[in-house]
Amino acid sequence: MNFASDNVAGASGPVLEALVRANEGPSPAYGADPLTLEVERRLGSIFEREVSVFLVTTGTAANALAIAAAVPPWGLCLCHEESHLVDDECGAPEFYTHGAKLVGLPGTGGKLKADQVEAYLAGRPKGVKQMPPCALSISQVTEAGLVYSLDEIAALADLGRRHGTAVHMDGARFANALVALGTTPAEMTWKRGIDILSFGATKNGCLMAEAIVVFDKALAETLAYRRKRAGQTVSKGRLLAAQFLGYLAEDHWLANARHANAMAARLAGGLGRIPGVRFAWPCEANEVFSIIPRTVDDALKAAEIIYHPWTTGSLLSGERIGADEVLIRLVASFATRQDEVDRFLAVASGSPQSAAKTSAIA
Amino acid sequence: MNFASDNVAGASGPVLEALVRANEGPSPAYGADPLTLEVERRLGSIFEREVSVFLVTTGTAANALAIAAAVPPWGLCLCHEESHLVDDECGAPEFYTHGAKLVGLPGTGGKLKADQVEAYLAGRPKGVKQMPPCALSISQVTEAGLVYSLDEIAALADLGRRHGTAVHMDGARFANALVALGTTPAEMTWKRGIDILSFGATKNGCLMAEAIVVFDKALAETLAYRRKRAGQTVSKGRLLAAQFLGYLAEDHWLANARHANAMAARLAGGLGRIPGVRFAWPCEANEVFSIIPRTVDDALKAAEIIYHPWTTGSLLSGERIGADEVLIRLVASFATRQDEVDRFLAVASGSPQSAAKTSAIA
Amino acid sequence: MNFASDNVAGASGPVLEALVRANEGPSPAYGADPLTLEVERRLGSIFEREVSVFLVTTGTAANALAIAAAVPPWGLCLCHEESHLVDDECGAPEFYTHGAKLVGLPGTGGKLKADQVEAYLAGRPKGVKQMPPCALSISQVTEAGLVYSLDEIAALADLGRRHGTAVHMDGARFANALVALGTTPAEMTWKRGIDILSFGATKNGCLMAEAIVVFDKALAETLAYRRKRAGQTVSKGRLLAAQFLGYLAEDHWLANARHANAMAARLAGGLGRIPGVRFAWPCEANEVFSIIPRTVDDALKAAEIIYHPWTTGSLLSGERIGADEVLIRLVASFATRQDEVDRFLAVASGSPQSAAKTSAIA
Amino acid sequence: MNFASDNVAGASGPVLEALVRANEGPSPAYGADPLTLEVERRLGSIFEREVSVFLVTTGTAANALAIAAAVPPWGLCLCHEESHLVDDECGAPEFYTHGAKLVGLPGTGGKLKADQVEAYLAGRPKGVKQMPPCALSISQVTEAGLVYSLDEIAALADLGRRHGTAVHMDGARFANALVALGTTPAEMTWKRGIDILSFGATKNGCLMAEAIVVFDKALAETLAYRRKRAGQTVSKGRLLAAQFLGYLAEDHWLANARHANAMAARLAGGLGRIPGVRFAWPCEANEVFSIIPRTVDDALKAAEIIYHPWTTGSLLSGERIGADEVLIRLVASFATRQDEVDRFLAVASGSPQSAAKTSAIA
Repeated sequence: MNFASDNVAGASGPVLEALVRANEGPSPAYGADPLTLEVERRLGSIFEREVSVFLVTTGTAANALAIAAAVPPWGLCLCHEESHLVDDECGAPEFYTHGAKLVGLPGTGGKLKADQVEAYLAGRPKGVKQMPPCALSISQVTEAGLVYSLDEIAALADLGRRHGTAVHMDGARFANALVALGTTPAEMTWKRGIDILSFGATKNGCLMAEAIVVFDKALAETLAYRRKRAGQTVSKGRLLAAQFLGYLAEDHWLANARHANAMAARLAGGLGRIPGVRFAWPCEANEVFSIIPRTVDDALKAAEIIYHPWTTGSLLSGERIGADEVLIRLVASFATRQDEVDRFLAVASGSPQSAAKTSAIA
Repeated sequence: MNFASDNVAGASGPVLEALVRANEGPSPAYGADPLTLEVERRLGSIFEREVSVFLVTTGTAANALAIAAAVPPWGLCLCHEESHLVDDECGAPEFYTHGAKLVGLPGTGGKLKADQVEAYLAGRPKGVKQMPPCALSISQVTEAGLVYSLDEIAALADLGRRHGTAVHMDGARFANALVALGTTPAEMTWKRGIDILSFGATKNGCLMAEAIVVFDKALAETLAYRRKRAGQTVSKGRLLAAQFLGYLAEDHWLANARHANAMAARLAGGLGRIPGVRFAWPCEANEVFSIIPRTVDDALKAAEIIYHPWTTGSLLSGERIGADEVLIRLVASFATRQDEVDRFLAVASGSPQSAAKTSAIA
Repeated sequence: MNFASDNVAGASGPVLEALVRANEGPSPAYGADPLTLEVERRLGSIFEREVSVFLVTTGTAANALAIAAAVPPWGLCLCHEESHLVDDECGAPEFYTHGAKLVGLPGTGGKLKADQVEAYLAGRPKGVKQMPPCALSISQVTEAGLVYSLDEIAALADLGRRHGTAVHMDGARFANALVALGTTPAEMTWKRGIDILSFGATKNGCLMAEAIVVFDKALAETLAYRRKRAGQTVSKGRLLAAQFLGYLAEDHWLANARHANAMAARLAGGLGRIPGVRFAWPCEANEVFSIIPRTVDDALKAAEIIYHPWTTGSLLSGERIGADEVLIRLVASFATRQDEVDRFLAVASGSPQSAAKTSAIA
Repeated sequence: MNFASDNVAGASGPVLEALVRANEGPSPAYGADPLTLEVERRLGSIFEREVSVFLVTTGTAANALAIAAAVPPWGLCLCHEESHLVDDECGAPEFYTHGAKLVGLPGTGGKLKADQVEAYLAGRPKGVKQMPPCALSISQVTEAGLVYSLDEIAALADLGRRHGTAVHMDGARFANALVALGTTPAEMTWKRGIDILSFGATKNGCLMAEAIVVFDKALAETLAYRRKRAGQTVSKGRLLAAQFLGYLAEDHWLANARHANAMAARLAGGLGRIPGVRFAWPCEANEVFSIIPRTVDDALKAAEIIYHPWTTGSLLSGERIGADEVLIRLVASFATRQDEVDRFLAVASGSPQSAAKTSAIA
């Protein structure tokens, strides 16, 4: 049983089926195939406007290319200090931008706060010795599992606009945020001022498939060259596109995300009833960040349940993790089964047998 | 019918089956899974020695990472002037190396000739104003479809060694060369002095899967960071590994290559019998470079047969393409069917009906 | 009257004379001249050991090249969050390193504190997703005008060593720190664990001349190529070297630094006697960071005295700048005259006439 | 006696005097001083139009920054295969452009020929796999000492324009070409289609001072950041500017160039009268490329006269250097004295004594 990440799952059935279906016969290489065009059309329909789409194989590449499209080598990209961009991509944004600088700003729950960003920008000297701010990047869902409200997105995007930056959304868990807010892709992005989006699909059901969705046409100009040069233009491009077609068909992606969120909510609900357990941040999408007694942690490990301990400087004001406590992250995916959640909760609450039984009945 | 490239095919059956099989259940992300380890073990066995293996999704990334492992930003990489590195990767080697220079040297048939490389190196001033040579890269199969003999590889690798360069092989069509020579992977690489190899798999049956195989341990040191930073460390790593396991199992990769080469040989054999047709270079692997009358070209196009016209400065001495002739490239893959070849030949020879019939009978 | 920086002065007399002297006759280009060799010898003697020396024209280039020698594109360089590297070089370290990341750590007075650095390193996950720490850089004098003690240098260098990083000193004001500590160049650098030094000379009397002094031979290997490639290998190299020869001859550099420090001390002494004036940090070298009443600021400006207001997050604990106060930086150089200091103080204390008189008498 | 390069000379008197004059008193740093503004105004007047000017310390930096302003990392810069850009800057253009590719095209005498460039561009496939041509760079004077005519410049610039490239002139020896053609700076540059110019000054009398002169405003936008980031924005900027003011005042730069050209012409004239001596290319500016008997070479070396042997693939059709011959390059500068030339010729012609006498009389 594995709650370490949503990328420990394989691909979902409909995605795999679309892939197998697309595999037959010859097709033009390097993205000149009909399926790739169809993905762009589909995403245009989903986002209710013309978009430019660049398919790649990893979220790191999607983020780094998107940032590179917006930030010259001497520019700044403002983001949360614990964002994936800053902490988990081994400097991919710096590589793809040829040395731009990520400015990691603080904020509880992994969220940038408009007034803090504003203060940072106001206090910054302007001159050729200082790198100018060129992009603002937010993660929806955040690294702390929280979801920006539409108003929060609009406020940050507006602030970026006023300061002349492009606004990027790292949507590695885009679908989870979307169904959490119960809104539309358009409302959560360009209608709120997002210029360029990393549209994640791998964590939510694809094999290795992410899309850069560009709303500001000017940002798309260089991406075909940048992607090719980065070795991210796959030769059998239809096999990348096919994943998206399976993913987007019949709202499969939304169903996957709803399931993942529901499993996380079930996890959080159950954990909340266990004495001594509390939450670092509320569960808003498909992740649970819980502070649990070390004894519970031990029991879970003894049951060979896999998940990550977590460290953060982004806790709510006043929160402290005790010496006999552990902060853990649990991630649910489209593939997480209810019986797994229930067994996890049974182990955590000290009654694994009953869980096994419940699970068997279910 | 499509002879444009071996990447117009999808994935081969056993590869796809291995992928579907590997998809079940959870698995550690980012290449820490058992299948990825198994691929390294398998390749070690195939190459008859310990190797370091880095899986990526494209040949461009494999080449660029391999070169970057060997060449600092101020170094030279010697290669053929019409190599894929130079002509078809939009500067990926320059991107990954942070600005190293590819020196494209001439040579008929896409082959570097040891004496020409030696002359280039001898004539080069040595000083801090000049970038030092740090790698020599050869393509096996070459861009002209030729196969370096084991002696030719050894001579070039030896030359590189004497001049202090690493020696890289771009093996986008490694399997086709291997079966053409009837030798072993070890003999064609490290036993002849190759330090690092782009081991292609996509063109010969995978979906999007290439391996950097490192024989010189020192070259492997930086690759884990470089690959992650390039967005080439896929999160669901087992789905990359699984393609290789399907590819390598039961000599499937060799069978695929043998088939592709046989289909190319059949194409070449048939073309050779058509009046007015000759070859730019002999067909040694799975590609045919043929000079055909423009009338034949017109007939093929009229039959909606797809292939690329070709331009090159690498023709055999004395060869010239006439005004009423066209140089074309035909590529066969594991998926090329004999009836397709026969229909192609029938059209080319001016008797499409008989071909259709033959094909129907077959 | 200008206290804006020590680079508002021209070159000092002996430096200019050495330059003019060296100008006669032909000399080999690109640093192959006898004067350049003589500078390396002289610096070896001054540092009491063999050193590799790379002359460049700016402190930015010296710092960026030194960092690039130590940090690969995927590495971290730890430094103070308000260091020149981070704030004032428009991303030169990122450019020269091809995208390494500067981690700016806090610390009062612009100083890194060993325990904070230790805590940062201890809390950092280790894995291929995270950039590894490769260098630690300290500024001697710091951006806040403070001087690291020999023990502080040793503690930080030792910490760096234990974590496998190179240790760099940004010595843009090296001479000012040296005379402030009353120690030797060797004691302040390699004997305390410094591996590579930006040895500043421009601010203290040269025209445009800085030296990278390398103690760890391994770090010197790539610098000749890196410098040439950066356009920092000046063709008439002797004219760069000559500046150093004039600078270093007969302890001229130390005399310059002593004078600058004395002028700053006189500024600080005088300011300390003015009611309502206090210091952000003590004056330890040639810079004074003073919190002054806005009325005093107005009077100084009215007298057309030039200096910079300052912003910092590096104030001593508990210090706050009031609404009617201004934090200013005053920098003295070898060229600052005592009468200028006295006139500054007279204006600041509200008796400019008496100052003019005093100055006239002196 | 040294004919190795024009950078073996020091600075000329008026330049040095201007420098010393500018050294007095304080002045704003980083190019915000009045002298730097004055240089831009002066160059505007000399070029008869508004220009943007960026002062740097080396020709390598000027070239690399100019190319970087015009060519994105994925672009091509077309230039002569033996240009300084390609051969002598250790990859500075690749560094500053973040990995763009220089395409070195052949041409006798170091000159690009419009029809060859046109043929290259026409034959180039267009697609995302191929780097697009973004700049065309010519060297005036060429590496072979030849001077492009105004018509040749116009033809190449026009060709560049038609193919969408920026057009750069490497004017390391701009003044020598200008006086050779007897034209104006405007006629030799923007009036013929040049967009951006490396305006050399070091070789012709400055210490370390070159200017990037930008005619196409769009190319100037990023240069302030790029220059700072490259460590090429010198802090005591007036000392860079002062060199230019001395250089440009009272046509001193033109007088220097005329002298250098005259000395080269005298060298060529004398050499032409020596049996067995001929020229690789005519002497059009301040360089002589002469094919001399090995015996003459030996005599010159025995007399400790310094110059470079030369290798080139850019000889006139049919020219071959015999086994008992040497191709040498002789460069004259503003500092070359007539008696040195005469002594050189006396040694070369086998009568050193008479030369010594002549020289003594002169």
